[in-house]
Amino acid sequence: MKTFNIAFLGAGRMGMTHLRNLVGVPGVRVRVVADPMAEAAQAGAAAVNAERASADIAASIAAPDVDAVMIATPTGTHAELIEQAVRAGKPVWCEKPVAMTLDDTQRVLKTVEASGQPVMIGFMRRFDPGYAAAKRAIDAGDVGRIERFRALSCDAVPPPLSFIKTSGGIFVDMMVHDFDLARFLVGEIEEVSAWGASLIDPGFAEAGDVDSCVALVRFANGAIGSIEGSRRTTWGYDIRTEVAGSKAKLIVEGQNKTPLLIARHVGHEGDYYQSFPDRFEAAYKAEMTYFFDCLRQGIMPAPNVRDALESLRVALAATQSLQLGRPVRVDEIK
Amino acid sequence: MKTFNIAFLGAGRMGMTHLRNLVGVPGVRVRVVADPMAEAAQAGAAAVNAERASADIAASIAAPDVDAVMIATPTGTHAELIEQAVRAGKPVWCEKPVAMTLDDTQRVLKTVEASGQPVMIGFMRRFDPGYAAAKRAIDAGDVGRIERFRALSCDAVPPPLSFIKTSGGIFVDMMVHDFDLARFLVGEIEEVSAWGASLIDPGFAEAGDVDSCVALVRFANGAIGSIEGSRRTTWGYDIRTEVAGSKAKLIVEGQNKTPLLIARHVGHEGDYYQSFPDRFEAAYKAEMTYFFDCLRQGIMPAPNVRDALESLRVALAATQSLQLGRPVRVDEIK
Amino acid sequence: MKTFNIAFLGAGRMGMTHLRNLVGVPGVRVRVVADPMAEAAQAGAAAVNAERASADIAASIAAPDVDAVMIATPTGTHAELIEQAVRAGKPVWCEKPVAMTLDDTQRVLKTVEASGQPVMIGFMRRFDPGYAAAKRAIDAGDVGRIERFRALSCDAVPPPLSFIKTSGGIFVDMMVHDFDLARFLVGEIEEVSAWGASLIDPGFAEAGDVDSCVALVRFANGAIGSIEGSRRTTWGYDIRTEVAGSKAKLIVEGQNKTPLLIARHVGHEGDYYQSFPDRFEAAYKAEMTYFFDCLRQGIMPAPNVRDALESLRVALAATQSLQLGRPVRVDEIK
Amino acid sequence: MKTFNIAFLGAGRMGMTHLRNLVGVPGVRVRVVADPMAEAAQAGAAAVNAERASADIAASIAAPDVDAVMIATPTGTHAELIEQAVRAGKPVWCEKPVAMTLDDTQRVLKTVEASGQPVMIGFMRRFDPGYAAAKRAIDAGDVGRIERFRALSCDAVPPPLSFIKTSGGIFVDMMVHDFDLARFLVGEIEEVSAWGASLIDPGFAEAGDVDSCVALVRFANGAIGSIEGSRRTTWGYDIRTEVAGSKAKLIVEGQNKTPLLIARHVGHEGDYYQSFPDRFEAAYKAEMTYFFDCLRQGIMPAPNVRDALESLRVALAATQSLQLGRPVRVDEIK
Repeated sequence: MKTFNIAFLGAGRMGMTHLRNLVGVPGVRVRVVADPMAEAAQAGAAAVNAERASADIAASIAAPDVDAVMIATPTGTHAELIEQAVRAGKPVWCEKPVAMTLDDTQRVLKTVEASGQPVMIGFMRRFDPGYAAAKRAIDAGDVGRIERFRALSCDAVPPPLSFIKTSGGIFVDMMVHDFDLARFLVGEIEEVSAWGASLIDPGFAEAGDVDSCVALVRFANGAIGSIEGSRRTTWGYDIRTEVAGSKAKLIVEGQNKTPLLIARHVGHEGDYYQSFPDRFEAAYKAEMTYFFDCLRQGIMPAPNVRDALESLRVALAATQSLQLGRPVRVDEIK
Repeated sequence: MKTFNIAFLGAGRMGMTHLRNLVGVPGVRVRVVADPMAEAAQAGAAAVNAERASADIAASIAAPDVDAVMIATPTGTHAELIEQAVRAGKPVWCEKPVAMTLDDTQRVLKTVEASGQPVMIGFMRRFDPGYAAAKRAIDAGDVGRIERFRALSCDAVPPPLSFIKTSGGIFVDMMVHDFDLARFLVGEIEEVSAWGASLIDPGFAEAGDVDSCVALVRFANGAIGSIEGSRRTTWGYDIRTEVAGSKAKLIVEGQNKTPLLIARHVGHEGDYYQSFPDRFEAAYKAEMTYFFDCLRQGIMPAPNVRDALESLRVALAATQSLQLGRPVRVDEIK
Repeated sequence: MKTFNIAFLGAGRMGMTHLRNLVGVPGVRVRVVADPMAEAAQAGAAAVNAERASADIAASIAAPDVDAVMIATPTGTHAELIEQAVRAGKPVWCEKPVAMTLDDTQRVLKTVEASGQPVMIGFMRRFDPGYAAAKRAIDAGDVGRIERFRALSCDAVPPPLSFIKTSGGIFVDMMVHDFDLARFLVGEIEEVSAWGASLIDPGFAEAGDVDSCVALVRFANGAIGSIEGSRRTTWGYDIRTEVAGSKAKLIVEGQNKTPLLIARHVGHEGDYYQSFPDRFEAAYKAEMTYFFDCLRQGIMPAPNVRDALESLRVALAATQSLQLGRPVRVDEIK
Repeated sequence: MKTFNIAFLGAGRMGMTHLRNLVGVPGVRVRVVADPMAEAAQAGAAAVNAERASADIAASIAAPDVDAVMIATPTGTHAELIEQAVRAGKPVWCEKPVAMTLDDTQRVLKTVEASGQPVMIGFMRRFDPGYAAAKRAIDAGDVGRIERFRALSCDAVPPPLSFIKTSGGIFVDMMVHDFDLARFLVGEIEEVSAWGASLIDPGFAEAGDVDSCVALVRFANGAIGSIEGSRRTTWGYDIRTEVAGSKAKLIVEGQNKTPLLIARHVGHEGDYYQSFPDRFEAAYKAEMTYFFDCLRQGIMPAPNVRDALESLRVALAATQSLQLGRPVRVDEIK
């Protein structure tokens, strides 16, 4: 297996996350972790046993022992670093977004396409096992013609208001993930209609943004859909995507993180059944209908007295086993 | 459709439930509701527009305008009333149990079989949509050869201790429903091994019973299984049945009564995801592997800069729609 | 308990359903079932043991022995029959809708309010245990300030195209239930923005309607939301409603009708875990971190060799019990 | 943070899994990967950038630059290698089991305790987020007094029969994980009663083992429970654990690996609702009762004609929005 020698740029919080994930990937050797803050670069290099740390990003891209570049620096630097790397003849993986404006993004696209270098942008949701399986199901035709799409994305904790002012707004900063999923799963979007509201914190409105949003989307293939987002929930990160088609509906949702369910009285009145009359309400009705149907058709109904006898026999055997402290054969009970 | 003329015996709590269910059953006319307590009989008759109420049970069974008898009187009277009815040449539906002893039940069985009359015993769980569908799936071969069975039955509220003394014990009074389901779904039981404990209330032990129990069951067809029961939960009525076979596993469980879920922080630490790093942990790793696989195979990876461009374009269209208060075509954004 | 004497108008399909439900309601006596089709009236009367059947609707409303009127006749007749009944001084329950136009509905409202008679319209979803519990939770403040609303309504089987032409369109005929729920759970709606598409059958477009729709809603209290609907699914009737607020999110959804789950390989690749390495992937990592944390902090880690010893002892006791066919005390294993 | 220098013994399949997990653990440096098969040792060393590979296990344990030993060699070697390591004064992490017999395990325990070295055995389930959260909930008193325990463990694919003969049997090889969980979550086990059957493959019986098992367990604290296991399912790895107490019931179950649900007609008849009459059956009944209760109590019922009017107004606004292609204020509709 060919091994790639990597320059990894940016050792901030997300950079460290990506670096640690990189360790498990076969065929990758991190030559250099570069960050203008030398300490961060060193911490990053140490975390992955990289050969060296560097505060010089340009030199790290250009280094002759580097054959691919990974970019996790602040957003405003992505465009230029992608361009530097592809001009140096090196493939790139870069965190999203490329840039905050169409113009900048188009310029990068032009440079990248001229270079012929592979460049990947980190819309990581496409690689979630749920979304990836959804895509496979769609491509396999399991969903049929797609008719409707719905995406919900809510952060648990809002970002600081200082960030909001430079974020590009909720649609560019946050819902772009849902637009990307819509394009990934359904196809190109032709038209949108969006509403927003500032319901969580008036600071969002003051910053020229909204904290809650809904939007309609219309796809080139005729499907329609909606998007909903919020900067804050009080019950956790809330991501749900639905794709409904002529054959099936896909729902990608990872609501419960931990495989533990606690059953107790904290839900709401009526959450659980109270006893056999409510749990088996339908059964009580069905058995009456069945009984008279049997009579009408001349069929002997069951469960009958023999069933009562045999079930009682088992119950008595269990009672005897409880008393004797040993297994009891049912035919011992006579 | 032939109409059956019914004598309904016993207008206590369960009797009233059965009477009300009877109303929705087509082809049934309640001629008489009989109960030794005249007021109860009258209330029962009124509830279903029965022709008459009576305090004379024997006369009600014998009445010439009655062609079938339904019995919801106290347990101790079931055996004799079933026998009276079939001797009068009338089919019978009777609440469970037939009797508390094998001898009494066998005597009734003999009388019933001699009479040739249809007699049905109210093990109503068999008519629950879940259990009925499970039975159909088993009979259709969907489960394959049954290997393992498991049943859980827990009441939410324990019965009064005064009742426990005459109940026949937890296996005869309560778990007999699970033994009946085991026989219904899997087949005859050959051997049982039972343990019990008095953990909820020492009164159960004083009454010679247990309040919690577990048991092993071995079926004639080779399958094995377990039964678990309790007289009290603090989270609601808890009934779950599992049938595992060579082709599939069936689970019948009706845990949530009301179709309402409340998402909020009342579960446990770790119940929900907190943000994208934990929700999309697997995605972050998968995308790294994918990127290097693409490089290795000479494939251009996606999402690429063009994807970033198009998703950004949609996000900007949404932002503009939000500002203009009208739908915006994505190709307006250039 | 006061008994109401009812004239029930309309014994078609929904009329019969309502009639049968009526039987279980205490304190109600059906005096007359009226339907212009005499046979239908008689079948309806027979089903509930009504005193009489009638083909004369006006006379049935006016009958002196009738104190309340229930209307399940065809939609076009609702307005006039409600007016007749309240003018006759009788309270009314009527199937939705009152009428297909605002003018007609306003005229009925005026007549009803002038009469002072109680008149109820059958938006039955409000009485579903899930929606009713959601309303209680909202009123109790459990959800906090409502921020977002979402409703989905999809029929499993589309109506005949002949009906579509006179249906008033998907929003008036179908989504009005969701608008009613929105108003019931969140509050009055101020603005809507709707899109539709004809994806299922071109007949919908030919009839001037759509078969799939999405819409945005803005509430007077500032909340925003979306609505989605379809005339046909291939996986069953699909109704889901979400109300997200500052304290919690409510989800009303009744997806599974029968409490039976079948576990088998029919889902999709990756639906189930294959073995311990994938199921316990996180555990394998966590235990490594824990081990070194213990070393670092000078804590003896567990599970340790004593745990291995005691768990093995239980396993050997189980093995011996299996061989001997009797319970084995763990301290017998030495 | 102190860094530990590790000798990792055994680079087979599980060894490689553990090695890869080790990479993400901070403060760990793998000095040597040792395996009698030199190639395996080298592959293991390469995978984690270890300093060296070795075919000499004893030398690797003894190496002066190694301060802790991790053991993932074949089962039969665990006991001796643990003893070598602790005698060399080094802490140990070792895959389960320590040994297949009580005698060997007790001997190791004695050596370990004499050495004072920390030794941890890899019962990894305790570190699963679900089991760990269950333990925290129990320790926090959320479950109250534990009354009942239930564990299910089923492999998806049976091991080769050649392995079965030396496996120690299903309880020692497989269910020991459940016994360990029982001890971890509930407490020490005093008594077991076990049954088994050979239902999947007669080879298990020929090898002196069973492929399916059930057992009762009785805990020193009075709780009772059951265990169920199988060597093969056809629907995936199936692990479920229940702990029921006086305050709550915990269920640890990770059934679905991928957060994707596909709704389609592949379940069973009755799996989904078909339409409003079955989905809203309870609602139809509840609204009737409510209507007459209102009449009886002199309350004006709702939804009323005004509700019908306002919901219709919204529906008409949506219809107009659909036709005009722009948002419509509801008060435009008059």
